[in-house]
Amino acid sequence: MRVVITGGTGMLGKKLAAEILKRGSLTLRDGKAHAVTKIVLFDAYEGFDVPKDPRIEVRIGEVDHKPTIASLITPDTGAVFHLAGVVSAGAERDFDLGYRVNLDGTRVVLEACRALPQPIKLVFASSLAAYGGDLPDVIPDDFRPTPQTSYGAQKVMGELLVADYARKGFVDARALRLPTIVVRPGKPNLAASTFASSIVREPLAGLPAVCPVDPGSWMPLLSPRRCVNAFIHAHDLPDTAWGWNRALLLPSLDVTVKDIGDGLKRVAGQKAYDLIEWKIDPMIQKIVAGWPRRMGGKRALSMGFTVDASVDELIRNYIEDDMPKAR
Amino acid sequence: MRVVITGGTGMLGKKLAAEILKRGSLTLRDGKAHAVTKIVLFDAYEGFDVPKDPRIEVRIGEVDHKPTIASLITPDTGAVFHLAGVVSAGAERDFDLGYRVNLDGTRVVLEACRALPQPIKLVFASSLAAYGGDLPDVIPDDFRPTPQTSYGAQKVMGELLVADYARKGFVDARALRLPTIVVRPGKPNLAASTFASSIVREPLAGLPAVCPVDPGSWMPLLSPRRCVNAFIHAHDLPDTAWGWNRALLLPSLDVTVKDIGDGLKRVAGQKAYDLIEWKIDPMIQKIVAGWPRRMGGKRALSMGFTVDASVDELIRNYIEDDMPKAR
Repeated sequence: MRVVITGGTGMLGKKLAAEILKRGSLTLRDGKAHAVTKIVLFDAYEGFDVPKDPRIEVRIGEVDHKPTIASLITPDTGAVFHLAGVVSAGAERDFDLGYRVNLDGTRVVLEACRALPQPIKLVFASSLAAYGGDLPDVIPDDFRPTPQTSYGAQKVMGELLVADYARKGFVDARALRLPTIVVRPGKPNLAASTFASSIVREPLAGLPAVCPVDPGSWMPLLSPRRCVNAFIHAHDLPDTAWGWNRALLLPSLDVTVKDIGDGLKRVAGQKAYDLIEWKIDPMIQKIVAGWPRRMGGKRALSMGFTVDASVDELIRNYIEDDMPKAR
Repeated sequence: MRVVITGGTGMLGKKLAAEILKRGSLTLRDGKAHAVTKIVLFDAYEGFDVPKDPRIEVRIGEVDHKPTIASLITPDTGAVFHLAGVVSAGAERDFDLGYRVNLDGTRVVLEACRALPQPIKLVFASSLAAYGGDLPDVIPDDFRPTPQTSYGAQKVMGELLVADYARKGFVDARALRLPTIVVRPGKPNLAASTFASSIVREPLAGLPAVCPVDPGSWMPLLSPRRCVNAFIHAHDLPDTAWGWNRALLLPSLDVTVKDIGDGLKRVAGQKAYDLIEWKIDPMIQKIVAGWPRRMGGKRALSMGFTVDASVDELIRNYIEDDMPKAR
């Protein structure tokens, strides 16, 4: 059975592929585990450190290009994970690109699935960027999405498509609203949330890092490891577990930025902690203050999704899974 | 100044054009009333009984055809009312047509506005089909949209586009979620709600009508007259009255189907009332039971939108505005 991961050469795509290969199978609509014989990582970029495995194939192309996607999602495809997307800052800077990739791309992927001889399961990565405007302290499962970025608007439109294609019986699609993924390996990126990973990752490598927000700022966190497990769990659940409501708010570890620093101190000591420079950047502070502070995620917990136990665990996962080893 | 109404030869489009001509002007972004010199009614169909006025021009075409819409929304356009759409049953029957007209068409109209030398106001007709699934007795303003039809999904996607184009400063766009419009003139159509007009309109003309739902079924109603006034009010309000929240739940007259029958009896007498045959159609009953029962509409009321005072008024409006006169 073939598995397609769009955005496949990204951080989460690569980890997802590795985890699926480790498990060896996915549960399809017949309720049975089917062996995975091939994983196609589709992306606009080659990426780096793609897992070495004869079952993995990298395909480069544009996600909104119909013939490309039709040739990608072939009749032997058993599962699709649709993670491809222009991220928040990118979609804000280039309005047309954001709609082309995040909205049109999602439609093209769903249409390619609809064209298959039988409906398959698809997991769509949405985001807490679905929320914005006036927010309560804790976001309940049934809180209305009112995105305040183009990225967020495109993600909510993707969720609506997912629900409609599922309702019509075209694709057994499901969407997960992801919290902030921490600790991300690699280098800082242009996302406003990048500091939440940097203030752990850089000090662990003996490098300084700036925290641009108030230590009291709340952050809803999820580790890459649990995020990947959530993708697979979202896929393997039967459609009866989803019903008509196909957009699920994932639970998160809700901590303050101070809690992240304190966790680093406990795991890696005072010396590492002292590498964090606390220096507020009003622009980033403002963006972060507009985000959801705490995610309820009650429905997801009742469906068997899990949350990281502590900041310490989050940091130890990173050290174990991703931290470059001393040579 | 030119005004463009998409879906312009439909029932609401024609009434909106007539009301704008009667008023003579619309309030633009400078806060001043500007004289309307031309109204273009754009639609896929010629329609009938289009108001006779030298300022009215009918243009026929497809709303998702970019060059057509670019030639329609010219630089002298001061206001756009985007009412065009494939209705509920049509979008459910033809999935591709629904997305092409209701989603792609809305994008094309917004893009044509974005291309203008300065941002203009646009009013988008959304619907209570935005709601579905588990609903409370009264829908609060901030209740989450979870549409259970393709039409509803497409309308919510349109609202998200409206909000995003407004946030970016491309189009000063606003969306209204319309209740069930009653009494519609003309003949019954394929909408499941068509009976709510029929059980008034046909008996007034001395004809029998079937009511296919339980008399206790709730219906949130709005008269065509108030709906048209709501479109103009939504347009004329300054952008500061809207803020970031561009999708507005209109208030409705929330009555049971029995209340509609009782109103008819009061206005037109027992003989008219006796022309209603009460005969439940389980399929229509099920659809109607899944709709919102009562709309709160508090925010809209605070913004100056109004609601019909009684079923009697609704019926008298129809007699005054639309009922074919005895010859």
